[in-house]
Amino acid sequence: MMENLFQIFYIEIKPDFSEHFVLQTASRYHIPLIPYSGGTSLEGHFNPPSSDLHTNQSKNQFESIEEELKPGYSFTVDFSKHMNQIITLNESDMDVVVQPGISYDQLNEQLKTRCASSKLFFPVDPGPGAQIGGMVGTGCSGTNAVKYGTMRENVINLTAVLPNGQVIKTRQRAKKSAAGPDLTKLFIGSEGTLGLITEVTLKLQPILPTSVGVSHFENVESATESVLEILKNGVSLACVELLDDVMMKAINVNMVGKKWDEKPSLFLKFSGTHEQIKADKELTAKIIKSHGGSKIKLATSDSEALEIWESRKMALWSSIDYVPGSKAWTTDVCVPISNLPKLISKTKQDLIQNGLISTIVGHVGDGNFHCIILFKNHDEFLKTKESVERMVRLAQELDGTCTGEHGVGIGKKWALERELGKGTVDLLRSIKQLLDPKNILNPGKLIPDPKNDSSH
Amino acid sequence: MMENLFQIFYIEIKPDFSEHFVLQTASRYHIPLIPYSGGTSLEGHFNPPSSDLHTNQSKNQFESIEEELKPGYSFTVDFSKHMNQIITLNESDMDVVVQPGISYDQLNEQLKTRCASSKLFFPVDPGPGAQIGGMVGTGCSGTNAVKYGTMRENVINLTAVLPNGQVIKTRQRAKKSAAGPDLTKLFIGSEGTLGLITEVTLKLQPILPTSVGVSHFENVESATESVLEILKNGVSLACVELLDDVMMKAINVNMVGKKWDEKPSLFLKFSGTHEQIKADKELTAKIIKSHGGSKIKLATSDSEALEIWESRKMALWSSIDYVPGSKAWTTDVCVPISNLPKLISKTKQDLIQNGLISTIVGHVGDGNFHCIILFKNHDEFLKTKESVERMVRLAQELDGTCTGEHGVGIGKKWALERELGKGTVDLLRSIKQLLDPKNILNPGKLIPDPKNDSSH
Repeated sequence: MMENLFQIFYIEIKPDFSEHFVLQTASRYHIPLIPYSGGTSLEGHFNPPSSDLHTNQSKNQFESIEEELKPGYSFTVDFSKHMNQIITLNESDMDVVVQPGISYDQLNEQLKTRCASSKLFFPVDPGPGAQIGGMVGTGCSGTNAVKYGTMRENVINLTAVLPNGQVIKTRQRAKKSAAGPDLTKLFIGSEGTLGLITEVTLKLQPILPTSVGVSHFENVESATESVLEILKNGVSLACVELLDDVMMKAINVNMVGKKWDEKPSLFLKFSGTHEQIKADKELTAKIIKSHGGSKIKLATSDSEALEIWESRKMALWSSIDYVPGSKAWTTDVCVPISNLPKLISKTKQDLIQNGLISTIVGHVGDGNFHCIILFKNHDEFLKTKESVERMVRLAQELDGTCTGEHGVGIGKKWALERELGKGTVDLLRSIKQLLDPKNILNPGKLIPDPKNDSSH
Repeated sequence: MMENLFQIFYIEIKPDFSEHFVLQTASRYHIPLIPYSGGTSLEGHFNPPSSDLHTNQSKNQFESIEEELKPGYSFTVDFSKHMNQIITLNESDMDVVVQPGISYDQLNEQLKTRCASSKLFFPVDPGPGAQIGGMVGTGCSGTNAVKYGTMRENVINLTAVLPNGQVIKTRQRAKKSAAGPDLTKLFIGSEGTLGLITEVTLKLQPILPTSVGVSHFENVESATESVLEILKNGVSLACVELLDDVMMKAINVNMVGKKWDEKPSLFLKFSGTHEQIKADKELTAKIIKSHGGSKIKLATSDSEALEIWESRKMALWSSIDYVPGSKAWTTDVCVPISNLPKLISKTKQDLIQNGLISTIVGHVGDGNFHCIILFKNHDEFLKTKESVERMVRLAQELDGTCTGEHGVGIGKKWALERELGKGTVDLLRSIKQLLDPKNILNPGKLIPDPKNDSSH
């Protein structure tokens, strides 16, 4: 009777609940566990293992398109409901200990009132709603990474429950340590395959004055070259985002009154003391001018700065609105910055040739960009899938990666070995086997199955 | 005849030499290999495994004191002679691919002439002479870490030969990637126990204007509190070094003419655009004044700045000169910054009570300090050893680490489990066992033997 029945059990983890008991039980009965927090990831990270879904998906973006259910059981282990608190705020040391189910925006909201003598924030800012547990899992980043780095640079230690039920804490709270390899890093980017994360210590940063502006360019090359020169001159940019011409058109659809120039554009956020920002803006204007960029349109008030940055943050929704009735495939790749213009221009060419409408928004300071491809039917869906694969292959040929921040999940497993080589993937696989010999934790994610996930 | 004979074989690795062949051969005949580059490490990292040396040592600092040789063979695998080149400089992307036997000072010297259109440098600056291979091995840092981070934040990828002879490259050259756990980090801090590092891609940074100054304080607490406030205000310090009263006295011994105040002092290096430095210096002066620090003595010329920084960089030699005929035990610990005053004051008290003369110089922005203890005879040596153990235990009780930058080697193996817990050390041990089942690579270092290296 169970043959066509697909069941997902659901566990809400609470602080007084023994995670190691969950793991021991799951291990004894061989039941897959899928850790879950914000549910904003894009490569099928929290899909049940019994669903054979070869596309990316998210509760926030689009429903699953091709889902073939197989009989089986799995537990979704949800940290978001009862494991979402700040445990300890160490204001003097600029760090905070949190549970995995707190989102970065909730954390920053709470820091506003809980910091007594200073203004501190946690800088890693992926898609809104992302929670710390998942952010550790995907090793994510966001617009602030050019200044503050990714999750890999902003987690001091973490507590993990291993598949055998053992609880380990990777480090103490000192800001740095040379006491062996930092095993914190083994769990960052492991996508829930090596352990359940139950506590995380994060670095905080002082909130500094910022200033926001936009400049338009004739092409992606001159925008990218400007950024390279700005960075080499030590300008302290908190963010520098590249939006292509189509993205600018999409944003304009929802703009009331004022419209942006519909050209490749840089959205810049300067950060530092007031004097520094003033000097940085002057230097940046000079560099941009020498590359043919327009005069920087600077926000003259906080509300205008917020409005400009909201335009950037709404990129996904603006893109979906741009083609009524469409669904969006969001993907990301990352290359050495000097290879970015080539990758973007070839990708755009490929998409146009295939009759697909897409927008591009990139963390250009990291060589990372998101491509949002809009499709309305199955034929376009298949074309999208193929274009994404070509984009990934090209990024890898340009010494880059199949994903700068979204992770591998199910969607990019096929690309991992061609990027890292067989030896590195074998090592990753053998570490997984060492920690989780029964393959209980998030099976079928990240690590390619040598039989089924061979390179395209 | 071999019973009392100790032999160290020596291999100079060359680019056309097959490292994997060395490893396969060593593995077949069960011969330990000890990777070697700059030879500046301090915890016995490159001692032959057959020497049962329970103290720290370095060719630069002091000869081994108690050395008990056991029969055995090992190969020292030297990368410094023929594997010391820049392979590719990617100036546009601000990265460089190097061989492991190049020192960071040689690298920076070569970058001065090889960078065509920009001024770039590699910021990680441990003890002079350290080479990139060893710097990866110990996960080191230096005075610039407060701004630029440690080796963990500055290596993009590396190529390693595993004990089974397999060659892996951990990542491509993109500045960031979310393609799984970054296995680069598994080798950083692994002290040569997991693989031989044959190629490393490093992030470079723009050389910015700097300004150097010194301020004196009544006590360590007020100096530390000043630093915490400076950092929370977003001042862009490249370095902030704390030298205690004894260290200042030791430096004065070699000063010609002008002498420093013999009080706890901060050596500050501001870094940024000229306008930023100006504003940062004003803000810093105000903060320091509010904590009772003296007016900052600023260098008025490049040569004066160099002279001030040389005083700091000569800390070790000045300390040894301070007590004629002494040898130095150099150790380092690191704690959350707010715990630093307590650790320093208790440590100084302990050392004085034991009749030991010592100097302290700390990377206060990281909560990290070096203690240089001077001893002249075996009795003082034993007292030093015990004091270091108490310092390590106290640092760990204050949520800190037994080593901020020197590594574990032989000298701090006893302290690892009490810091990281049995589970974390077991995981590290099982990864070592997975990669190196015959224990060929730098045996006896880093990973405590459950039988012989139990916690004190």
